[in-house]
Amino acid sequence: MTLKEPAARIRKSSEQVRSAVHQAVIDLLSDSAGADLTIPAIAQRAGVNHTSIYRRWGGLEALLADVVTTRLERDWPLTDTGTLRGDLTAWVEAGVESIRTPEGRVLVRAVVLSMPSSAPTQAERAQQFRRRLHSIERIRERAAARGETPPPVEEILDQLIAPLYLRAIFGIDLPASGYAELLVDRLLGDVGAPGPA
Amino acid sequence: MTLKEPAARIRKSSEQVRSAVHQAVIDLLSDSAGADLTIPAIAQRAGVNHTSIYRRWGGLEALLADVVTTRLERDWPLTDTGTLRGDLTAWVEAGVESIRTPEGRVLVRAVVLSMPSSAPTQAERAQQFRRRLHSIERIRERAAARGETPPPVEEILDQLIAPLYLRAIFGIDLPASGYAELLVDRLLGDVGAPGPA
Repeated sequence: MTLKEPAARIRKSSEQVRSAVHQAVIDLLSDSAGADLTIPAIAQRAGVNHTSIYRRWGGLEALLADVVTTRLERDWPLTDTGTLRGDLTAWVEAGVESIRTPEGRVLVRAVVLSMPSSAPTQAERAQQFRRRLHSIERIRERAAARGETPPPVEEILDQLIAPLYLRAIFGIDLPASGYAELLVDRLLGDVGAPGPA
Repeated sequence: MTLKEPAARIRKSSEQVRSAVHQAVIDLLSDSAGADLTIPAIAQRAGVNHTSIYRRWGGLEALLADVVTTRLERDWPLTDTGTLRGDLTAWVEAGVESIRTPEGRVLVRAVVLSMPSSAPTQAERAQQFRRRLHSIERIRERAAARGETPPPVEEILDQLIAPLYLRAIFGIDLPASGYAELLVDRLLGDVGAPGPA
């Protein structure tokens, strides 16, 4: 085996396969908005055998779900700042920074695509969505444990997640700064959080 | 020609072709979330010759744009109620009623799919999105002509459109009533609009 060996021939570790396959999904979505997102195309792009993908993930739907869960955890991380307002602001700030990048906008499109279409029931769709966004539940539980009263999940979806997703999907400009604080102020009410003088 | 003649053989008027093709796009998106959305599949479903589709629309992108513009005008109509608050509430109420139906949720997915992917510039994407949602501009212009001060387009997108789209895309339950008023109150501030006692 030499350095010129094509990528497909180099034996990859399990984690390398996973990482290459995830990146191939994001790359294909960047190129074509999903029309070419098939297991053979992903396998070719990742330089792995398509049977490895079927064996590991079972199919496209489970693979997409794994990609979005993994990437959302990495790119929209949670920080325990000690307050509900701080936790929400840090989380939304990370999301804003992510969707400033082309790959971050593709991730949001991947979340949309990973939702089942009209065949499953509304309840199944909603449950899948909640699983993708369990960050909201973690932030709410942490706040409740501190004695704070977090807003309902639906308000967090409407006022924090929805604007970010809409702007990512439609490529609407983001304010240069202060957008996370603005959204959190709208949600919680602007109670005079301390800021720079 | 008999009543048993297949639909494809009956000569359709130009308006019938347009209507059948639009419905075929919505039906295919309902079935498969877009994976099978090709001109030949649309032609077959609509019972028209695929050359008619290419001749009339040029390609899939222009067809999708025509479908979403036409259906949004029909299903999310504008009403001149005499006030900015009334116009926004009536428009959002129509949108809420639309996305309570499976076809209304498919329409929102079609709007998302009709957005170009990452190839065009952000500015092009934003321009296309604005064209789709020129209703917002019409409501703002009407308000300005009355001497009212409408919120910026971005606030209307973040606070009215984004929650509806997120709930449509992810199948999140809508409140049984009062949702349009709630969203408009959040946007404009709840200034004690008269309601039932």
